[in-house]
Amino acid sequence: MKISVMTDILEVNDRIAATNHETFARHRNLVVNLMSSPGAGKTTLLELTAEALAGKLHLGVIAGDIETTRDAERLEKHQIPVVQLTTGTACHLDANMIASALPHLNLDQIDILAIENVGNLVCPAEFKVGEDFRVMILSVAEGDEKPLKYPLMFRESALLLINKLDLLQHTNFNLEEAKANARRVNPDLEIMGISCTTGEGVEAWVSWLSDRYQEKFGKPKRA
Amino acid sequence: MKISVMTDILEVNDRIAATNHETFARHRNLVVNLMSSPGAGKTTLLELTAEALAGKLHLGVIAGDIETTRDAERLEKHQIPVVQLTTGTACHLDANMIASALPHLNLDQIDILAIENVGNLVCPAEFKVGEDFRVMILSVAEGDEKPLKYPLMFRESALLLINKLDLLQHTNFNLEEAKANARRVNPDLEIMGISCTTGEGVEAWVSWLSDRYQEKFGKPKRA
Repeated sequence: MKISVMTDILEVNDRIAATNHETFARHRNLVVNLMSSPGAGKTTLLELTAEALAGKLHLGVIAGDIETTRDAERLEKHQIPVVQLTTGTACHLDANMIASALPHLNLDQIDILAIENVGNLVCPAEFKVGEDFRVMILSVAEGDEKPLKYPLMFRESALLLINKLDLLQHTNFNLEEAKANARRVNPDLEIMGISCTTGEGVEAWVSWLSDRYQEKFGKPKRA
Repeated sequence: MKISVMTDILEVNDRIAATNHETFARHRNLVVNLMSSPGAGKTTLLELTAEALAGKLHLGVIAGDIETTRDAERLEKHQIPVVQLTTGTACHLDANMIASALPHLNLDQIDILAIENVGNLVCPAEFKVGEDFRVMILSVAEGDEKPLKYPLMFRESALLLINKLDLLQHTNFNLEEAKANARRVNPDLEIMGISCTTGEGVEAWVSWLSDRYQEKFGKPKRA
């Protein structure tokens, strides 16, 4: 009974996600669903991404938060279009919430749309929103065994960014062990180490993102 | 419709939680529901707590994880009774899961029962399990604005432990700001700083817990 309620919810969600995906393709938007635990560094990474892409590809963001508009305010300072979704009690973004945000964005002026999900290592992985792929962040402060304990998000992601490398020396996080654990759950997962504090690895991430855009759509809209 | 499904689920849950609570009171178990993001330090704190309480109060643990039995294995090394609940896809523990664990514990030989929830700063706060109170951990690596962004868990907790104080100097986490944010959400919240790495503050936490036991039940069972 509980399961069938959930199945229904996911079926409806997937149908709306498919419609979102068609909308994005029509407007030539590459869409990345960015997921992590609270405080792993999603907003900071998007701030750095906005700076790195400026003048090259047009970034837009839909930022999900349970309460407050802090993330959106931080992102708007980087002169990019941002829509804030305040979810209230919902612990994830779903396809319908994303659909409701779209009329507030000029999709024809966006190349890459980043969807910053609610900070949660579990629930967001269950809900497609119409994205091209999922990227997740794991902070070294969280521990290297997390892929085994929270496998779904690692399984559903194309790329894992291991963030806060600057803290590595102060923790017992084993980078090789973390990568091995992640690949045990998802052998196809790409993995990059980054530090949003020192900037290490951020260029590689932005190149990865730009390459995905070029593969799918070729030249950006107004470059 | 979506809301009424959720309301039903919570009503059923609360009824089972009340029954659990009666069971715990009958067996003189003080029950603490321990919640946090993934990797904030729940298991490590419980390992230190088991060592500190040894010979004084009898600790038992119900450990919830989506997958793996790693936490339970770590805890069992401390010669305490541990039941592992593997939730599969469920992002939180609920009252019924706890009820299903109880036949596997000898409650008459436990003074303090710690329920280690699934690592998630959102969903666990919605589900009572029959506990006396909730304690949450926030790691300084997560950021000092988290009480504002994820208010429910802070609102529902009696005590906030701010962990990983040893990392404080390597982050931009502002301890006073974090406390002010937490008290904005929950003026009655008690707050303690700890480091499970250096041991700072752990004694104060264990005293707090022992005091709560004594207030409710007086002398421990076999002291």
